[in-house]
Amino acid sequence: MPRRPHHDSGPLCVPVAAHALGEEAVLRVWVPDSYPVTAVALRAVVDGEIRTREARPLPAADAPSADAAPEEPTPAEAGAGTWWQVRLRAENPVVPYRFCLIGPGGGDVPAYAWLTAAGLIPWDVADATDFRLVVHPPAPAWVADAVVYQVFPDRFARSASAPVDAEGRPAPQDLPAWAVPMRWDEEPAVRGDITGRQLYGGDLDGVIERLDHIASLGADTVYLTPVFPAGSVHRYDAATFDRVDPLLGGDEALVRLSQALHARGMRLMLDLTTNHTGDTHEWFRAAQADADSVEAGFYLFTEHPHAYRSWLDAVPSLPKLDHRSPALRARMLEGPDSVVGRWLAPPVWADGWRIDVANMTGRHDDVDLAHEVARTLRGTMPEGTWLLAEHGHDATGDLAGDGWHGTMNYTGFTRPLWAWLAEPGSTLNWLGLPTTVPRLPGPAIARTLVDYNAHMPWPSRLHSQNQLSSHDTPRTRTVVGTRERQIVAVAALAALPGVPTLFAGDEIGAEGSTGEHSRTPMPWAAIAAVDDAAPADGSAPADGSAPGDGPASEGSAPVDAEVLRATRALLGLRRREPALRRGGIGLLHVEEDLLVLARTHPEGDVIVVLARASRPGPVELDLRGWTGIIGLEEIHAEGNVGGSADGALLTIRAAGPGAAFWRARRS
Amino acid sequence: MPRRPHHDSGPLCVPVAAHALGEEAVLRVWVPDSYPVTAVALRAVVDGEIRTREARPLPAADAPSADAAPEEPTPAEAGAGTWWQVRLRAENPVVPYRFCLIGPGGGDVPAYAWLTAAGLIPWDVADATDFRLVVHPPAPAWVADAVVYQVFPDRFARSASAPVDAEGRPAPQDLPAWAVPMRWDEEPAVRGDITGRQLYGGDLDGVIERLDHIASLGADTVYLTPVFPAGSVHRYDAATFDRVDPLLGGDEALVRLSQALHARGMRLMLDLTTNHTGDTHEWFRAAQADADSVEAGFYLFTEHPHAYRSWLDAVPSLPKLDHRSPALRARMLEGPDSVVGRWLAPPVWADGWRIDVANMTGRHDDVDLAHEVARTLRGTMPEGTWLLAEHGHDATGDLAGDGWHGTMNYTGFTRPLWAWLAEPGSTLNWLGLPTTVPRLPGPAIARTLVDYNAHMPWPSRLHSQNQLSSHDTPRTRTVVGTRERQIVAVAALAALPGVPTLFAGDEIGAEGSTGEHSRTPMPWAAIAAVDDAAPADGSAPADGSAPGDGPASEGSAPVDAEVLRATRALLGLRRREPALRRGGIGLLHVEEDLLVLARTHPEGDVIVVLARASRPGPVELDLRGWTGIIGLEEIHAEGNVGGSADGALLTIRAAGPGAAFWRARRS
Repeated sequence: MPRRPHHDSGPLCVPVAAHALGEEAVLRVWVPDSYPVTAVALRAVVDGEIRTREARPLPAADAPSADAAPEEPTPAEAGAGTWWQVRLRAENPVVPYRFCLIGPGGGDVPAYAWLTAAGLIPWDVADATDFRLVVHPPAPAWVADAVVYQVFPDRFARSASAPVDAEGRPAPQDLPAWAVPMRWDEEPAVRGDITGRQLYGGDLDGVIERLDHIASLGADTVYLTPVFPAGSVHRYDAATFDRVDPLLGGDEALVRLSQALHARGMRLMLDLTTNHTGDTHEWFRAAQADADSVEAGFYLFTEHPHAYRSWLDAVPSLPKLDHRSPALRARMLEGPDSVVGRWLAPPVWADGWRIDVANMTGRHDDVDLAHEVARTLRGTMPEGTWLLAEHGHDATGDLAGDGWHGTMNYTGFTRPLWAWLAEPGSTLNWLGLPTTVPRLPGPAIARTLVDYNAHMPWPSRLHSQNQLSSHDTPRTRTVVGTRERQIVAVAALAALPGVPTLFAGDEIGAEGSTGEHSRTPMPWAAIAAVDDAAPADGSAPADGSAPGDGPASEGSAPVDAEVLRATRALLGLRRREPALRRGGIGLLHVEEDLLVLARTHPEGDVIVVLARASRPGPVELDLRGWTGIIGLEEIHAEGNVGGSADGALLTIRAAGPGAAFWRARRS
Repeated sequence: MPRRPHHDSGPLCVPVAAHALGEEAVLRVWVPDSYPVTAVALRAVVDGEIRTREARPLPAADAPSADAAPEEPTPAEAGAGTWWQVRLRAENPVVPYRFCLIGPGGGDVPAYAWLTAAGLIPWDVADATDFRLVVHPPAPAWVADAVVYQVFPDRFARSASAPVDAEGRPAPQDLPAWAVPMRWDEEPAVRGDITGRQLYGGDLDGVIERLDHIASLGADTVYLTPVFPAGSVHRYDAATFDRVDPLLGGDEALVRLSQALHARGMRLMLDLTTNHTGDTHEWFRAAQADADSVEAGFYLFTEHPHAYRSWLDAVPSLPKLDHRSPALRARMLEGPDSVVGRWLAPPVWADGWRIDVANMTGRHDDVDLAHEVARTLRGTMPEGTWLLAEHGHDATGDLAGDGWHGTMNYTGFTRPLWAWLAEPGSTLNWLGLPTTVPRLPGPAIARTLVDYNAHMPWPSRLHSQNQLSSHDTPRTRTVVGTRERQIVAVAALAALPGVPTLFAGDEIGAEGSTGEHSRTPMPWAAIAAVDDAAPADGSAPADGSAPGDGPASEGSAPVDAEVLRATRALLGLRRREPALRRGGIGLLHVEEDLLVLARTHPEGDVIVVLARASRPGPVELDLRGWTGIIGLEEIHAEGNVGGSADGALLTIRAAGPGAAFWRARRS
C-alpha cells in the first residue's frame, strides 16, 4: 500500500492553500517509481463543469523537506518516487478535485486510475469522494489544536459550597419537583424517565475547582452540556435560553468559569438546542397561552394549544421549533442580540456552540431549512468561535463549509473504532438495530475510516469532534471491555484527524452501558488517590510498580490509573506533534488486527501503529522513500506493540493490543 | 453473486410505491437461503435522523408472482429464499434508506452488512448510495417507455423544397455571412471554428419526411438540437428565443413537425440554452447598447459593454446569463409566457426541454443558483412534459428530484460502455485528459454502472437519457471500432435503465472522431437501398444472405445494414418488454469480458447477457430460486452469444461479442 500514489489535504501535499475566492493553491501528488506513469492530471469541478490540467514532476530539489538537516542521507531511497505538482484556483468556494494517474499499466498497476480522498480507484467514480479545495473561512486556528473535555454539569463535580444534606444528597433551596436527589456515589440508571430526574448536584463552581485535572489531560477546551434551567438534569428541555440554571450557580458561576478558563488560556464551549425547546420554555408557554402571539409561530402546532410537533414526533416535552418563523430566527440565531450571539459576548465570552440535534433542525415534512439555519447561525458567530453540529449518523451532506465548522464525528471515528475494538460477544445494542456491537476486521474499519470521511471536506473533518464516548453513548470502556483495548482507542483518539474529545470519566476507564448510564459522577477521591500515588508527568511510577497498581485501581475502585496515565501521555503526544493535530492522512497497512497510518506534515510525519490483538511474527513495512521518508524514530508506545526501524524500513511487532508512534524524517 | 440478498427500486421490490408526502411504500428484500439471517432491518433517514424498523419474512404465498400461471413448478427451487417486507412512510420528499442484514455470519457471509443501491457492503458507509424513496412528481409516464432520436437539424434531412444550388449546396434567399454551404455528401470538419459554419441545409420539413425511418427504429420522441436563429449551424449561440430559424423553415415548419409527430403518437423535445445566449442575441444587444437597460442585468459584465463573463470564460460569443436577475428569470423561466412556457404551449405544443449546459447554469464565483433555476423551470413545465438537463460529468448532485427529471447520463452509461467496448489502441481522447479511451475490464465497468448510478435517485435514472453518442461526442462506432461491438453497445442501450437515445446516424454505424465530426449528414439514398434489400420486420433477409451484405454496406457505402437491423430489433425488444423499460436492476455475474444483469419486473424479469469478446468454455449461472425464478426462455440474441437454460439454470456461451436476452418466469 505505501507503493501507491498519495495525496492528502494536509500541508505536505497542499503546501500553498487558497484562503479566498480566486486564490491559487499548490497541490502535490507523490508517485512512487514502482508505479510508472506517463502523466498525472488534475480534474476539478468549476462552476459545475470539469476542468483538467496536467501536473508536472517536481525536480528533487524542490521536493518538501523537513526543517532539520537530514542525517545519514540515503540518496537511493530518497529517489524512490516523484512529487508531481499542479496549481488550482479557487473559482468557487468549494472546488472538488481529484487526480488521474495515467501510464503503461502492467502488473498491479492500472493504466488508468483516479486518486480521490477515498483512495486510488481504477474506474470512473462519482464526485462524492473527491478532495475539496474549500475557501469558506474554516474554524478558528485553535480548534485544530484543541483537546475537548465534555462536562455534564450535574455529574462532574460539586463545589465546596454546594448544598448537600446529611446523606450526601443535593439539598438546594428550591429543589425542583421533578428532581430525585442522589448520593454522589450512586450509579445512574441505565434508561427510562428516571435518568432525567436523578439530580447529583454538580455545579459550575465544581468545574472551576477541577480545572487542574482537566488541564492535566492535555485538554484545553471545556464543553458543557446545557446550563439553562430545564425540566431535567440533562437540560436539553430548556425552560429559557436567557439565564443559567441556579442549580448550577446561575449566570455568575458561568462567568466565573469562563474567566477561570480564559485565565489559563483554555476555552469554553456551550450547548444549544435549536431543534426544540422544553415544554416549560417561556416561548412555548407564551405560544400555548395565545395562538396569536409571535411565539405561537415558533412552534408547529397541529391543534393549538395541545397538539404540536415534537422531537422525533414522540416526545411532547420537547416541542419542535419552526425555523420558517423570521421572528424565531431573529430571536434565536441572528445577530449579537440573539441567543446565539449573547452568550458569545461579555460577560460570558463563550468560545463556541455545540448545536444539539443539528441534524434535525429546520427539517420536517417538505421543509428543509437546515443549511439556512447553519449559515445564519454561522453569520452570528464572532471571529474566533467554533460552531459544531451534533449529528449521530452521516453528517457529510450538512458540511458544505459555509455553515457548521464540523460535527460530532460518531460515524467517521467512534463507531468504526468501536466495531474494531469491540469486546467479542458484547451485548450492547448497535445503532438501534436488532443486533449487538459487531466486531469487524481491520479492512472493513479502514474502508469506513477512509471512504466515509472522504465525503467530508477536510477542514470539516479537522474541526469535527472525535469522541471516545459522550453522554449519548455507552462508554468506550464498556464497548471494548478491557483496559488494553481502551488504551488503543485513546491512541486512535490521539492519532486520527479531528478534535480529540473526552467525556469526563473516559480518562479513568468509566463504564456505562447506555448514554444515561454513562453519565457517571466523577470519583474525585479515587482520582486524587491515583494522582498522589503516581508521578505527575505521566511516566511510570518511580518505585517500579506497574502503573495501574495504585490503590484506586483495586477492587471496586472506579479509577483505572493506567488508562489515566496513558490518556495523559497520548494526548500530550498529540499536543507536541503538529502532524497529529494538522497533518494529512494516509493509510499504509491494514490487517484484521492491525492498522498502520501516516499523518503527513512538513515538520515530520508521524507513523501510527494500532493493534487490537497479537499478531504471529513481525510485519515489515518498507517506507523507504515513501513521500521522501528516509528515517524513523519511535516517539511513543503503549501496550504490547513494539518494533524497530532500519532507516525507513519499519518492523512492527504486536504481542497484544497496543499502539506505537514513529516520527519520520524526510530527505 | 446471485446468491446475495437483493433489493432494487423497481416494481418487483417496491410493489407499492409512495406518490405523495405521508404515503407508505412497501419494500421487499430477497434473501436467499444460502445467506442466513436472523434479522433484516430497514434504516431510513427522516428529518435528518435515523429511523430503524425490522422487516418481516413474507409467507411464500404472498411472494410476488408472474401473471401467467407457472408451468413445471419446482417447489424446492422456489423455496430457495425468502422475501422480507417492511413499510416506509414518505415523511420527507426524499427518504434515503437501506437495509441491514444481520445473521450468524460464516464462510463468505458476513454477520453484519448493509444492502445499498451500490450493493452489499459489510462495513458502515455514507448515505450517498442509499436507495431513495422519492415523492417529488416524476417525469410523465411516457418518458420511461420512450426511445429518443436526436436530430441535429442542419445535418438530418433536406426537405424536397429546400433551396439547393447546382452543386448541391444550400442556397437559401438569405444565406448568413458566416455560412459555408456544403454538399450533403461532404464530411464535416473534425474541429475548429469551421465546424460551426458548415451549412448543409437540413430543415424541419426534412425531418417530417423521414418520420417513417425514425419510427422504424422504435423511436417515438424526436429531440431537436436548437432551432432558434443563431450565428452558427449548431445554434447554441441563439440570437433570439422567440422564433424558429427561417433556414429551418421558421415557426410554421416547427408547428408542422410537431403536428406530424403528435399525429403518429410521437413526441417533440426542444433544446434551450439557459447558461448563455449568443452575442448576437437581442437581449445581449440591448444589454450592450444600454448599461441601464433591464437586459444589462441579464449578463455578467465586468466592464460594460465589451468585457463580460462567457461560457467557460473562454468563448466571448456565448455571454453567460446571470440568473440572480428576477427580470431574466421572469422572461426566460417563469410562467406560461416565459421562453420555457411558450414553446410548450400551442401552436407548437412541444413535449419537453433538454436544457443545454444545465450543469453550469446559474453557477459562477460564489453564486450557485443551479437548483433554484431547475426548480423554477420545473414549475413552469406543464403536466406531461419532460425536463432534461445536459450534464457531461457527475450530475447526481443536481438530481434531487424537484428540478430536472433526469440528465444526459454520459457518466453512468455512455462512458462505462465505451471504456468496456473500446477498440484496443483507440486514439480518441478521453475526457480532456492526457490519454486515449481506456479499455477497462468488466469488473471496473460494473463498479461504475452500479456505484455511480447508485448516487442518483431511481426516478432520475429511469428518466435520464442513455446515449450511444451525441453531437458533443465521438460516435460509439468509432470508439468501439467494429460492427460487432457496436451491436453490443446497442444491446446495452436496450437493456439498461434510462431512456435509450440515438443520435441520428448511430443506427447506421456512422463514424465520428469528435462531436463536430459526428454531425454527419444522413445518407438517405444508402439507407433506402438497405431498406429495399431487407425485410421491413428486422428479421434476417429471406434469401439467406447474411444481414449487412446489402449493397449499401459495400465499399465506401456509409450504411451498416446489420447495425440498422440490430438497432430496430433490439429497440423493438425493449418496447415489448416492460422489464427493460421499467424494471429494477441487479447485477448477476461479472467477468472481464462478460456482464450478466437482471431487469426485475413482476411481469417477468429479463436476464441480459453482454459479451465484448469470446470466452473459453461456457459459464453456468444458477438462477434457480433467485427472487423466485423458476424458468428462463431466450427471447433475443445478437452476435456470438448463445446458451441454453435448464429451468433457471442458465448456460452461457460467448464465441465473440454479442448479447442475449432471457425472460424469466417466477413461481
